[in-house]
Amino acid sequence: MPASEFIENDPFAPIKYTYSIDDTLYTLETDYGTIKVLSSPYFGKILVLNDIVQLTEQDEYFYHEMIAHVPLHAHNSPNEVLIIGGGDGGTLREVLKHKNVKKVTLVEIDQSVIDVSRSFFPTLSTGFSDKRVQLVINDGAKFLSETTDKFDVIIVDSTDPIGTAESLFTDQFFTSAFSALKTDGIFVAQTESLHFHRQFIHDIQHKLAQMFSIVTLYTVPVSTYAGNWWTFSIASKKYDPKKLVKKCEIATKYYAEDVHHHSFLPESLYIKLVNY
Amino acid sequence: MPASEFIENDPFAPIKYTYSIDDTLYTLETDYGTIKVLSSPYFGKILVLNDIVQLTEQDEYFYHEMIAHVPLHAHNSPNEVLIIGGGDGGTLREVLKHKNVKKVTLVEIDQSVIDVSRSFFPTLSTGFSDKRVQLVINDGAKFLSETTDKFDVIIVDSTDPIGTAESLFTDQFFTSAFSALKTDGIFVAQTESLHFHRQFIHDIQHKLAQMFSIVTLYTVPVSTYAGNWWTFSIASKKYDPKKLVKKCEIATKYYAEDVHHHSFLPESLYIKLVNY
Repeated sequence: MPASEFIENDPFAPIKYTYSIDDTLYTLETDYGTIKVLSSPYFGKILVLNDIVQLTEQDEYFYHEMIAHVPLHAHNSPNEVLIIGGGDGGTLREVLKHKNVKKVTLVEIDQSVIDVSRSFFPTLSTGFSDKRVQLVINDGAKFLSETTDKFDVIIVDSTDPIGTAESLFTDQFFTSAFSALKTDGIFVAQTESLHFHRQFIHDIQHKLAQMFSIVTLYTVPVSTYAGNWWTFSIASKKYDPKKLVKKCEIATKYYAEDVHHHSFLPESLYIKLVNY
Repeated sequence: MPASEFIENDPFAPIKYTYSIDDTLYTLETDYGTIKVLSSPYFGKILVLNDIVQLTEQDEYFYHEMIAHVPLHAHNSPNEVLIIGGGDGGTLREVLKHKNVKKVTLVEIDQSVIDVSRSFFPTLSTGFSDKRVQLVINDGAKFLSETTDKFDVIIVDSTDPIGTAESLFTDQFFTSAFSALKTDGIFVAQTESLHFHRQFIHDIQHKLAQMFSIVTLYTVPVSTYAGNWWTFSIASKKYDPKKLVKKCEIATKYYAEDVHHHSFLPESLYIKLVNY
């Protein structure tokens, strides 16, 4: 029997999720808040930042596969990839599955998230020891406004757009991202639930459309994020994100070529729910 | 500020959902359990049966449009429709939008659910006064095993498959449904979350495939059912459920022709998650 419950406290969602847990494995206060690792009979280990579930062992692959493999299959030669956030390593693990990725820069604001993942989530954090990876501990918005590097793909794997992550959803940030992308670059960011954060998604799509010629949205069902119908806003300078430019040749649990195509909303829904 | 919280107690789901509510508008004990009507600042009025959320005013259209319009657009002449459950009237409201529907038999086990819906959910319960509707207060499995009527479409709009609704997911029930359908009939049932109830869905699909020549699954995102990635199992004697045999000419908020096609899982996911 589970010993207790963890009640999520997400101010950005109208439903609170409660998980049965049998142990709190770790708690740490850092400059950016509280990190917790819980153990759940159904979901396995759960990473919690500031009382919000970031991932569970049981279902993390839905989100991580989709944030990585859609842009990387839409780009012909994603040699240099930037990940902003993603300190748990799940997105990095998926990005590194692509052989044509030569260098990944991961910019995480909180070193402790990486350390906790390396200790408690070995199936997620494998990528940190890969030679192609450069780790930067810095604020993602600050890094992007100062970097002179140019990337093929930028992936924003952030927490909810409150507090620390707020700076990753501004016009200024999107302008920096546009500048840091090569002429055929692709930008993708997690942009919350299509049930609960529709106005937010609408606004992000419009902001991105001010600079990128191609802007759209794709989704993945995630059982452990409130609202579940999770979205990624994707913006591209050249490639159509809906099309794969190469076959999928990597091992995945959810992502596949037909899933790639299917993840984009039908036109009628995109117009009704997002681009109204 | 909301006065209190309602904590859902769904034994069939590994996450509990908690809603902010500002009022409990109604409570009634019946032979089949407890009916509650809550008022929520975000979701509007909420119908709760046995501590499980059945619908909210804010998002009920996702489920009700999809359970009705997919089978009714796949069938060329759905003149006679049977709804089992659905005492709130939401599915009935959608079915009655189809002009070629001549008669709808709705079999609800608990008269009180209908009464509560007529009192508190006028936008859902409009259909009960339509002349095409015949209301039967009875156990759905018992009704179906005894009826000599033949239907074009049978829709099972049930609660979770525990307690009262358990009898609506047996081999015996599916055999009765098959017998009560005309030679080109279509059967559809809500079959829970593709995140949390995958084994259950797998089993239902296999049971249906023992008698129906065409069996598949479609989905809708519902923010207020635990797991959200909600499924409908659909079984057909003649028509391919994925294809519309006529244009959609009714007013909807979510359903559309492209949504119909999109609601069916990509083949790779169907094989991985359901038909393994």
